[in-house]
Amino acid sequence: MVQSNLCTQFAHEIGRIRPLDDEAMRMTDVRLGNLTKPPGSLGKLEDIARQLAGITGEVDPDLSRKAIIVMAADHGVCAEGISAFPADVTPQMVMNFLSGGAAVNVLAKQAGADVVCVDIGVNAELEHPDLYARKLMHGTNNMAQGRAMEHDTAVQALLTGIELVETLWNKGYRLFATGEMGIGNTTASAAVMSVLTGCSPEEAAGRGTGIDDARLAHKIEVIRRSIAINEPNVEDPFDVLGKIGGLEIAGLAGVILGAAARRCPVVIDGFISSAAALIAARMAPDAVQYMIGSHLSNEQAHKKLLDAIGLAPVIHLDMRLGEGTGAALCFHLIEAAQRLLREMATFDSAGVSRG
Amino acid sequence: MVQSNLCTQFAHEIGRIRPLDDEAMRMTDVRLGNLTKPPGSLGKLEDIARQLAGITGEVDPDLSRKAIIVMAADHGVCAEGISAFPADVTPQMVMNFLSGGAAVNVLAKQAGADVVCVDIGVNAELEHPDLYARKLMHGTNNMAQGRAMEHDTAVQALLTGIELVETLWNKGYRLFATGEMGIGNTTASAAVMSVLTGCSPEEAAGRGTGIDDARLAHKIEVIRRSIAINEPNVEDPFDVLGKIGGLEIAGLAGVILGAAARRCPVVIDGFISSAAALIAARMAPDAVQYMIGSHLSNEQAHKKLLDAIGLAPVIHLDMRLGEGTGAALCFHLIEAAQRLLREMATFDSAGVSRG
Repeated sequence: MVQSNLCTQFAHEIGRIRPLDDEAMRMTDVRLGNLTKPPGSLGKLEDIARQLAGITGEVDPDLSRKAIIVMAADHGVCAEGISAFPADVTPQMVMNFLSGGAAVNVLAKQAGADVVCVDIGVNAELEHPDLYARKLMHGTNNMAQGRAMEHDTAVQALLTGIELVETLWNKGYRLFATGEMGIGNTTASAAVMSVLTGCSPEEAAGRGTGIDDARLAHKIEVIRRSIAINEPNVEDPFDVLGKIGGLEIAGLAGVILGAAARRCPVVIDGFISSAAALIAARMAPDAVQYMIGSHLSNEQAHKKLLDAIGLAPVIHLDMRLGEGTGAALCFHLIEAAQRLLREMATFDSAGVSRG
Repeated sequence: MVQSNLCTQFAHEIGRIRPLDDEAMRMTDVRLGNLTKPPGSLGKLEDIARQLAGITGEVDPDLSRKAIIVMAADHGVCAEGISAFPADVTPQMVMNFLSGGAAVNVLAKQAGADVVCVDIGVNAELEHPDLYARKLMHGTNNMAQGRAMEHDTAVQALLTGIELVETLWNKGYRLFATGEMGIGNTTASAAVMSVLTGCSPEEAAGRGTGIDDARLAHKIEVIRRSIAINEPNVEDPFDVLGKIGGLEIAGLAGVILGAAARRCPVVIDGFISSAAALIAARMAPDAVQYMIGSHLSNEQAHKKLLDAIGLAPVIHLDMRLGEGTGAALCFHLIEAAQRLLREMATFDSAGVSRG
């Protein structure tokens, strides 16, 4: 009964996701063609301007209120010793986000964006006036020994992401980015990627926060075992999420779907966010058109994961921090695309000859 | 006699370029290691922070005053019909820069940088209170029929770039970027690249502002003929510059060397700026350490040209506009590197466990 209600809510949300607005994109192309530059010479900035119009239905939408939604959760699979950092770091970093001292805080401030910090499953009691307390579990179960969470919990986590976007939308936010914190979450993300794209655990696993060769080999083995024990159904992203996913991964997939349902662009950060984006894409293929790829991380499988979604990263800084840091940097490029469309002279106004 | 004086001035400037400050870089590494993130996880932003310290000798230098030096010049080789745009566009775009309507103006404004527009060789009489009038010729000669400019003119163009940096340095500018405008200048840049890197004209030439296959084949043939007629000496960058270069290319090489001599970072824009950077690197190999690569342009040879200098582009937007647009976008990443170093919490201050 609970499951049925949750699924109905979720299906309603998915049903709101529509293809982009062709007319708004066409009008943007006309404006881009009149600006004083060779046709197409602004490259992907022109693609972004066109996409923003298609998403919002407006050639020059107001995206000034922007939020990086940082979902934090723990992972039972840490018991297998797959990370370079102890699990204690998850709650410690949540408090760092709330105090404004983490990398994502610095980059959000530079971008004029707000960090929305969400406890969706941290294995510690956290209290802070700015924390969005949405804890569903004290971390997932150890997926190397059984399913990470119940099916219903995965759906609840998705709905939590959607609810957060709804709450922020009501406050005026119109541009979103994904971020996360969760020691062990590259292991879960690699498992999700391996199942949904059909690549091997070796291809999907990377060094996360910085593990050595021996621990990487162990991580690959743990991923292989988790998939073998749980037998997730590749045709069912809910099943994959519940068996080998993470609470923050599910929550971020909800954020992405919620943004798409409200015609808001959503910037996808690094490897974990991309795993969430792949889940969202499998649940609602049209949602991909609402996603903007940000950076290519140093996690070795990230390029292949982005390819599987159909996203092209524009920032190549070899970062491997997560948190939403790459997405925060991308806000600047989105603003650049909007400013160019709005402020550049036209061939006629500037008296410049066309080619 | 004139030549001798010019060369003495130039040699003096080159002599000022020193290796980076190891101690400042070491102190930066220590600070980076204490910030709440896995070691090295900010990737190339950490490299940039380290490089800025090495360049300036300060861990947290004040780079708030920044200028994009846009050098404009015409190219006699346009008579061969190698561009998609008429040569008239060079002076028209200079007036557009001065009116604030070009792409680089919009991106500079976003970055809090000033556009410094220089006429170093435009084939038109230009007047504007904000124009830096430094015209040395009314465009180069047609390099397909003989040398583009006299040897002395090339040296004067280099010294003009140095003088501009000196002037701006005296006004408080400490961070520079290169930009350019000159119909026909991808042809000259490809010729310079071909000679200095030893690659063929086919490998060096690209579509510039957007030429079709037939005109590209013609452009390659013109480059081949220009090199054959002039026989530039690959061991002598002055000879290459004078015979098959451009006034803005020489001027930008001067900007780069002048910035390095004054311990200022200089951001290298696209294909033409990179040709200037390669010239500067051949004149003073230590100057490369003062350069920051910005974007990878859509000009097909750009990656190979950056590799030849030793620069890695961090922004991949497929732009092909020049003007300094890619460099302007990179200012944001440089500021991000500085803010992270300055504002992030440390493991101790935030109570976060180390790995």
